[in-house]
Amino acid sequence: MLKPTDAPVPFSYRREIFWGDTDTALIVYTGRFLDYSLEAIEAWFRATLGIDWYAMNVDLGIGTPYVHVDIDFVSPLTPRDVLEVRVHVASIGRSSLGFTVTGYANGERLSFRGTMVSAFVNIKTMAKIPIPDEYRKKIVAYRDAHAGEVA
Amino acid sequence: MLKPTDAPVPFSYRREIFWGDTDTALIVYTGRFLDYSLEAIEAWFRATLGIDWYAMNVDLGIGTPYVHVDIDFVSPLTPRDVLEVRVHVASIGRSSLGFTVTGYANGERLSFRGTMVSAFVNIKTMAKIPIPDEYRKKIVAYRDAHAGEVA
Amino acid sequence: MLKPTDAPVPFSYRREIFWGDTDTALIVYTGRFLDYSLEAIEAWFRATLGIDWYAMNVDLGIGTPYVHVDIDFVSPLTPRDVLEVRVHVASIGRSSLGFTVTGYANGERLSFRGTMVSAFVNIKTMAKIPIPDEYRKKIVAYRDAHAGEVA
Amino acid sequence: MLKPTDAPVPFSYRREIFWGDTDTALIVYTGRFLDYSLEAIEAWFRATLGIDWYAMNVDLGIGTPYVHVDIDFVSPLTPRDVLEVRVHVASIGRSSLGFTVTGYANGERLSFRGTMVSAFVNIKTMAKIPIPDEYRKKIVAYRDAHAGEVA
Repeated sequence: MLKPTDAPVPFSYRREIFWGDTDTALIVYTGRFLDYSLEAIEAWFRATLGIDWYAMNVDLGIGTPYVHVDIDFVSPLTPRDVLEVRVHVASIGRSSLGFTVTGYANGERLSFRGTMVSAFVNIKTMAKIPIPDEYRKKIVAYRDAHAGEVA
Repeated sequence: MLKPTDAPVPFSYRREIFWGDTDTALIVYTGRFLDYSLEAIEAWFRATLGIDWYAMNVDLGIGTPYVHVDIDFVSPLTPRDVLEVRVHVASIGRSSLGFTVTGYANGERLSFRGTMVSAFVNIKTMAKIPIPDEYRKKIVAYRDAHAGEVA
Repeated sequence: MLKPTDAPVPFSYRREIFWGDTDTALIVYTGRFLDYSLEAIEAWFRATLGIDWYAMNVDLGIGTPYVHVDIDFVSPLTPRDVLEVRVHVASIGRSSLGFTVTGYANGERLSFRGTMVSAFVNIKTMAKIPIPDEYRKKIVAYRDAHAGEVA
Repeated sequence: MLKPTDAPVPFSYRREIFWGDTDTALIVYTGRFLDYSLEAIEAWFRATLGIDWYAMNVDLGIGTPYVHVDIDFVSPLTPRDVLEVRVHVASIGRSSLGFTVTGYANGERLSFRGTMVSAFVNIKTMAKIPIPDEYRKKIVAYRDAHAGEVA
């Protein structure tokens, strides 16, 4: 992943892999990769927007239900690995927000790539709402700072 | 879903929704839908092939790691719903096997649609192997019996 | 388990065991047994009280947070087993409600025994409330019908 | 928690709380506390013994199935909290190893207390084995260094 040494570093979420994440194939269970991806995006919300889904929901009445997720699996994970998930903003609509997540084992071996798209809604009515300006500005700034990077 | 009354019924997996499946939005957590989808496909293996992933792995040394999953979310689920996931065979390759899963609340309201593709492998070498003939025949028969159905 | 043939049968919750429930030891992961136990108690609520935790919380403003859980593990489970969890009422206080759960593989091999105690609360104030009379009557009737049974 | 300022600090495992950990009561789901406790003990294995359950199982053929777990719940957790789980060695037998775990929100509010007891076994025969000397020495040293501490 060539990039100028002064390029901004994309947000990455690191987590240990635990015994309970594995299955009878001695690798991480398929279903856990979606949890990892969602954790990474939620950590990105905290780091980039200064708020997480819980506070948005409970304090502001804003929900972000997912409308689409997909994951391509490249190589397995085990508890010997530390997982690093890099988060990029893939699409910004009026209400919708899409991410690509790329999971690396130990910062170097690609494990999975995913796309996750959510919609901002009013949790009372479940109607779509525009992404609030305060967040949109930060999302756009993050996206522009990392445009052109290979995920 | 119009079909002749004597049409074979596609396999469907039913399960209750529990408290622990929900999140702060009072609906089922996004990550659980992948578990539901995989449960449904595994139940299909039991019903259609007479073997599940555990027995294939432990007794036969055959694994079926996933190479791709995607889910589109249409409407939320809560513990008030009983989930029914209908399973269709979407693609049969030399080693690869793809499914579409469609989740309905209470047999009638569409909740989600997904695609899940796995590969048959030798668990010792992790090399791809052809889908064993015994299973291929049953998979093809199931697919052909349900061709043309609306999922 | 000797009992007169006309004895009332205690509620039991049956569920398949899936691939994703297992870990690298080729058996069900320890953490899943608490989920199984809670599922069984919630299924008991539906069957015995005609309401589940979700409806109690959302419709009635009543919560039942757990104050204590314990599990003793007797024998492992795998996806070859069908799990049956028998539910007994162990204690009924003013606000508190205790259960014993006993998990059997295929209806005959004891896998685990647990105790789970919850408290009825007002979800607005989180203050304890008496178990509503309507439910107390049914809980007491269930307990009395199954008194003296070996779990 | 009074202790001399030069006392060794007990191992503590910190983790963020995520959206997917919560339930309809807007707090962490009961079942997750067992996962948190097991994660904390596994992190202790890595830090104190230099090996985790996965490597013990796969590389050494040693398993550590749990024979007992219990948890008392004191106060709820939400994603607003960072969880810190302090790990103490509670009992060391020939084959058995017991821990107490105490979970604090943000390092100060007690959330839960648990006890978890496992047994060392040969994974081929599932027969109990003595705790290997190399590990026993480190476990005893850890216990003695933290004796008398309030968990």
